[in-house]
Order: sequence, then C-alpha cells, then structure tokens
Amino acid sequence: MTTGDEIVDATFTALYEHGYADLTMEAIGEEFDKSTSLIHYHFDSKADLLATCLETIHDEFLEDLEHDPETDPEQRLLRLAELVVGGTGDDGVDEFHTALLELRAQAPYDEALREQLARNDAVWREHIADIVRDGIEQGVFREVDPEHFAALFRSAIEGAQSHNVILGEDAPSEDAMAGIEELLVHELLVESERTEGADA
Amino acid sequence: MTTGDEIVDATFTALYEHGYADLTMEAIGEEFDKSTSLIHYHFDSKADLLATCLETIHDEFLEDLEHDPETDPEQRLLRLAELVVGGTGDDGVDEFHTALLELRAQAPYDEALREQLARNDAVWREHIADIVRDGIEQGVFREVDPEHFAALFRSAIEGAQSHNVILGEDAPSEDAMAGIEELLVHELLVESERTEGADA
Repeated sequence: MTTGDEIVDATFTALYEHGYADLTMEAIGEEFDKSTSLIHYHFDSKADLLATCLETIHDEFLEDLEHDPETDPEQRLLRLAELVVGGTGDDGVDEFHTALLELRAQAPYDEALREQLARNDAVWREHIADIVRDGIEQGVFREVDPEHFAALFRSAIEGAQSHNVILGEDAPSEDAMAGIEELLVHELLVESERTEGADA
Repeated sequence: MTTGDEIVDATFTALYEHGYADLTMEAIGEEFDKSTSLIHYHFDSKADLLATCLETIHDEFLEDLEHDPETDPEQRLLRLAELVVGGTGDDGVDEFHTALLELRAQAPYDEALREQLARNDAVWREHIADIVRDGIEQGVFREVDPEHFAALFRSAIEGAQSHNVILGEDAPSEDAMAGIEELLVHELLVESERTEGADA
C-alpha cells in the first residue's frame, strides 16, 4: 500500500470516528501510522485530501467490477447492487458507508468534492448503461432506455445504501434488496428469461 | 404559524446557510425574528430541536399527500416522486433538501435523529405500500410484493433527491424522473393499462 493509500484509509477511519464536523488533520494523523507531516506533504488541504479519497475508492471499486468474471448482464447488475447496498461483507463496510455519506452531504459546501462526485457519478451511470446495452444486444433484456434505467438503478442502490447508514437497525435492507431483484426481473428481462416463481 | 413552526423554519434556513458543522443556536437565532431565548424555552437541546424539525416536515408532507384529490394509484405514486425528487417547485426547495441531507447524514451520530428518521421511514413505506395495494385491488397493478416495491421506490426517489443536492448542476434529474416513470409502467401496470409509446 502506498503512503497516499494509507492516508486515504486513515481519513475514512477518522471520518467515521469523528464525523465531518470534527474531522481535523490531527484526527486523521491519529489514525495514520507515520508522521502527520507526510499528510501535509502529500495534500495541499483537507479539501484536496477528501476529493482524492473519493477518487481513490471510485477507482478501486471500478477495478473490482472490471475483474468480475461474470458475463450474464442480470447477474452483473445484481452483483453491483449487492456491493453497493450491502457492502462486500467485509468488516468495516458500515463504517465506510457512513463516512461516504458524510462526504456526500458536504458536496454543496465544497466544490472540489462536488466535482469529483459528479465525475464518479457519470462513470458509474455509463457502466450501468453499458451492462443494459449488453443485455439488450444479447436479447435477454427488453429495449428499455439505458440512460433512464441507469439513473433509476443508481438512485435505487445508493438510496438503499444511505438508508442502511441512516436508519441503522431499522433500515429495510432485505425488502430493498428484494425490490431491486424484482425490478431487474420485471423491468429488464424479456418474458422468455423469467423463471417460474420470480414473478412475485 | 406557531412560534414552534417559526423556529423549525429558522433551523432549516440556518442549516442550509451554515451546514451542520457550523450550526449553532446563535446561527438559528439569527434566522429567527423573535428572541433567541424563546428557542431555549421551546427546546431542551439542539438534538431535541432537530428531531422536532424532522417530525414537523414529515407531518406537513403527509398532510399534503392526504389532501391530494388524485385517486389513480399510478398518478399518486408519480406525484409522490415529483414532490420528493423535484420538490414542490417553490423557491427554496433545493436549500431545504440540502439541509435535509445534512440532517440525515448526522443520524449515525445522533440517536434522537435516527429514531425520528426511522419512524418517518416506516410511515412513508406504509403509505407507498398502501397505494400499491389499492392499485392491485383496482386491477390496474400486477400482484407485486407491496413491501418490496415500497422499499425500492422509496430508495429510488430519495436517492434521486440526494443526487440533485450532491451533484447540483451535474445531477441526472431528468433521466432519473424518466426512469421512475418507466418503472411504474413496466413493473406495476398490468398489460391492459399500458398505453402505446409508454413502452420505451
């Protein structure tokens, strides 16, 4: 892991521990094993550091998806939903999603964050729309509008992730994932691809 | 407008202006036309005030929906989506949604907020599920699982609202609303209710 990546990790840990309101360079330094001066050496400002955090996790996430050997379009969308809504199942995913929501909520107050989130969002939606186009080409998806579906799907999976963070134990996680699965079956799959029993 | 309602309004204005990190009782007092001591008289703490804010706007929103003369289930869901995603078209809606996202992001750090948001969420989802049940009973909606659909729909419309706040001018607002409209047509409506051209 590079020093830059270690600083990004320390930042997410500090964000979760303290919340954005109390996120100081000192708090980040406490989660970082090396000298705090290295943080100042790598990043001009907190805003610069936070935008880099968003870029780094976005790149890592996309890399994971691109190495996914799955080729079935429905399964690819399902896997994406599971990763975003439920996390990877690894320890610390809830904490990571909590920190992420904190950063997102700061975007209206921080132009560098907003721009990075907008770049990430455009790539994400294009990735989803490409899977939809693949599915239509393979004849397994109906001819929906890929951009409209991508915007809906991204709203749905990020909305469900946020609900998990915001509502904690009261979040309707299972209903939300079941709703997303049924969306894929009913809105995307052509009739001949729907299996018995999948239809509510 | 009661003094309590005026305080709630002042709180949302202050939240938008300063962000949660800089939201002080003084900042709220500056947006409030009467004496700041009245705020302390009405609310024990900032946490108490913020939870009351969420309760108040939730009640107002539900009241608006209950007075909606619309009876067609698809139109009711569409109207709900338009209200949540696009706001009412009134001035200040973006500012209000920005303040709301700030509050939501604080829920993991504030149990009173989390509990109020969980209560609101449960009422919301039940309201959506009831519309779905109505539609199934009227024979215009397919027999989907109302709870699964409600969780999906709520995630999708809140996710789209958050994207509008977070991404600003780069938010895919029109694609998201088009995706939500197509979701209603494809996932809910029975074949005979779908009009020509609605199908992608």
